[in-house]
Amino acid sequence: MDLARLVELNAAYARAIDNEKYEEWPDFFLDSCLYKVTTAENLVKGLEAGLIYADSRAMLRDRISALRQANIYERQRYRHIVGLPTVLGARDGASEVETPFLIVRIMRDGRMDVFATGCYRDKVQANGDGLLRFAERIVVCDGSRFDTLVAIPF
Amino acid sequence: MDLARLVELNAAYARAIDNEKYEEWPDFFLDSCLYKVTTAENLVKGLEAGLIYADSRAMLRDRISALRQANIYERQRYRHIVGLPTVLGARDGASEVETPFLIVRIMRDGRMDVFATGCYRDKVQANGDGLLRFAERIVVCDGSRFDTLVAIPF
Amino acid sequence: MDLARLVELNAAYARAIDNEKYEEWPDFFLDSCLYKVTTAENLVKGLEAGLIYADSRAMLRDRISALRQANIYERQRYRHIVGLPTVLGARDGASEVETPFLIVRIMRDGRMDVFATGCYRDKVQANGDGLLRFAERIVVCDGSRFDTLVAIPF
Repeated sequence: MDLARLVELNAAYARAIDNEKYEEWPDFFLDSCLYKVTTAENLVKGLEAGLIYADSRAMLRDRISALRQANIYERQRYRHIVGLPTVLGARDGASEVETPFLIVRIMRDGRMDVFATGCYRDKVQANGDGLLRFAERIVVCDGSRFDTLVAIPF
Repeated sequence: MDLARLVELNAAYARAIDNEKYEEWPDFFLDSCLYKVTTAENLVKGLEAGLIYADSRAMLRDRISALRQANIYERQRYRHIVGLPTVLGARDGASEVETPFLIVRIMRDGRMDVFATGCYRDKVQANGDGLLRFAERIVVCDGSRFDTLVAIPF
Repeated sequence: MDLARLVELNAAYARAIDNEKYEEWPDFFLDSCLYKVTTAENLVKGLEAGLIYADSRAMLRDRISALRQANIYERQRYRHIVGLPTVLGARDGASEVETPFLIVRIMRDGRMDVFATGCYRDKVQANGDGLLRFAERIVVCDGSRFDTLVAIPF
């Protein structure tokens, strides 16, 4: 899979979130997809559940609606710095890719801290229009300050 | 516009600043250009002014001269981590590009902190020699610890 | 030298370390190589020694064996965010490349901090199999919290 196209996909994904255009976020996934946020520690322990789980684009849309209604995300901004992707292989028409990330949280008073670091473990596939989309995005956090109530998309 | 060339431009820009070769910094701009540092909050409020403003390469050079004379920049180092660029479109021969960044400040005693995060909103254009240069670089900070007196180039 | 291949090399290097597959780390170097960790301050002062020094892949392997025996690395995780590479030129069949990096350290209790920032100064060369490898990697830290006892590969 073309590295430049993976870079474009990841850049657009992060940009939608950081610009708070959360409604665009589900469009980066296939209709039937897997989105999960978990931690490296949970994976080591064999805990499958994860902190956030969705298996369709409809569930991702519901999540954003809930977030907009709760309105709590407005207290801070986020900035994703997405690292360089590694293509691990291809299976069933999807490429397996691993990409590190760092998210900085910016409080309304200007304070900044490292909010989360980790690695996206993705299955990326072209949709019917030939656009790259996530069939699977497992967000494996090394550590994080997040609490699941306030969870913006990772 | 070719993604690889945009990556090269951004990498060289950050490298010049982090290696403290500030005199090279104006050369990344066209003679007639717009360089502005502002905040996401100011943009939302419709405040156009920005914290730093220059509309020619000559003004950028003046800024560096003043910085060298003040000599205060020597107390710390900076490290830019520039993220993946998103090409938004093209207008009047220039490509519109958005690129996230993170700047770490390193004090002389070794302490490090997140100095600024944000997004470059650029218009990139080839100059007479075919080299990519900034016709416009609007630096939109999410947050920042900077005070305008000590402002190195962003 | 192809930018995409440099990106792949750097991504794979960082991934091996962050996934704690330290035994893979020496394989990113040529048999005869130079690996050194130093600081920007030491370079300015003309101090050549560096904090960590190895001039063969065998020495890199020894370093990992010692690290595994000491077992102290297990108390924390690391996440490399590698920036955009700048190709400076070519000499003796090797490309000279400079690439910025940021390393976040994640303690077992979830606390995160900026562990190190700096710049890789590399000579990259194809090995007998046509794979890109480091003939030289000088890790120039801007600042760092590291103590040499606990030194994971940078």
